[in-house]
Amino acid sequence: MSTTTAEPVRVLDEEALGLLFTHAHTANSFAPIEVPDSVLERLHELTVMPPTAMNTQPLRILWVRSPEAKTTVGALMGEGNREKTLAAPLVAVLAFDAAWHEHLETLAPFRAAAKDTFAANEPMRVGMAKTNAAIQMGYFLLAARGLGLDVGPQAGFDAKGMDEAFFAENGWQSFAVVNLGYPAADGAGYRERQARLGFEQQTLTV
Amino acid sequence: MSTTTAEPVRVLDEEALGLLFTHAHTANSFAPIEVPDSVLERLHELTVMPPTAMNTQPLRILWVRSPEAKTTVGALMGEGNREKTLAAPLVAVLAFDAAWHEHLETLAPFRAAAKDTFAANEPMRVGMAKTNAAIQMGYFLLAARGLGLDVGPQAGFDAKGMDEAFFAENGWQSFAVVNLGYPAADGAGYRERQARLGFEQQTLTV
Repeated sequence: MSTTTAEPVRVLDEEALGLLFTHAHTANSFAPIEVPDSVLERLHELTVMPPTAMNTQPLRILWVRSPEAKTTVGALMGEGNREKTLAAPLVAVLAFDAAWHEHLETLAPFRAAAKDTFAANEPMRVGMAKTNAAIQMGYFLLAARGLGLDVGPQAGFDAKGMDEAFFAENGWQSFAVVNLGYPAADGAGYRERQARLGFEQQTLTV
Repeated sequence: MSTTTAEPVRVLDEEALGLLFTHAHTANSFAPIEVPDSVLERLHELTVMPPTAMNTQPLRILWVRSPEAKTTVGALMGEGNREKTLAAPLVAVLAFDAAWHEHLETLAPFRAAAKDTFAANEPMRVGMAKTNAAIQMGYFLLAARGLGLDVGPQAGFDAKGMDEAFFAENGWQSFAVVNLGYPAADGAGYRERQARLGFEQQTLTV
């Protein structure tokens, strides 16, 4: 292999990497500014573009906009998460759809013949949906940051209660609640950053 | 809530969003250029920054660099994936470490007292490791793109064989294999893009 390239490689600059990765913080509070519908649409559009296994795209999003729905979600949050979720300008409940195979002809026409096999194997469908929706949660959080939003993802809530309240008809299964909003002034929404493990602790080279 | 903000919100420009989300393609082949060690270190550094539940950071990465290791990994790939993995400039096996609680005092000192509870509950640890390592896989793939790399993630391989070959000592559990490299000239590494589902199909507003 050569060690040079014909064209310059396009990379993100430090400011962009900072916005997504190195400077960004998980937020517990936000500026008192609405998140417009157009930003929600763009956030969805970006989230679904990076790869999922067999293009399954199992992530589903519940945008919690009305005061009534916010109250219902708040009541289902763990006690330590309730207040900040009730105060967030926008709340998104992330879920997966284990019935992704119903879209298989659209998503993966080259695998459409396998639809019956997947239909008959719910554990496999649930496993693929869980893993790929979690991968897409990573895309969602970084896309939100790329659009200027701060994110506060949370796993501590009553998922069964959430599914009964909102997904009784479509069968989606919730796995995370994400608070979203524009950054509070002067980093007021952030706690101290916790430690990261090092390259030698988390990677191996063979 | 006000609809204006005192300071301009920092957002990624269209070129940066294109590099990560809208223009990028899953790659099946790459330019014949090495990926330097410094890029691997930077890729790890970026991947571990965005949030995980309780700061668990369960993702682990096996960098496959030697021809011997590449041959072992190639033999464990599903038939449709073997050739492209053997040809990739860099292969990363992504795994999770269900023993993340051993680092709890470093990762989440405010939860250090819960270490014994987690130690006693392996199913809970595995579940959290799977979900959060998959979220981190999303971060990893976008960080790689941000550093100018194309990515080719794959789920079709013998995970049990991979764990026996490489993780017998540390107990990591593999769940994805990612081919990485700099983009091939003229988009030669890409297949036609498959469909995405729409906002109305994948989101609900309440």
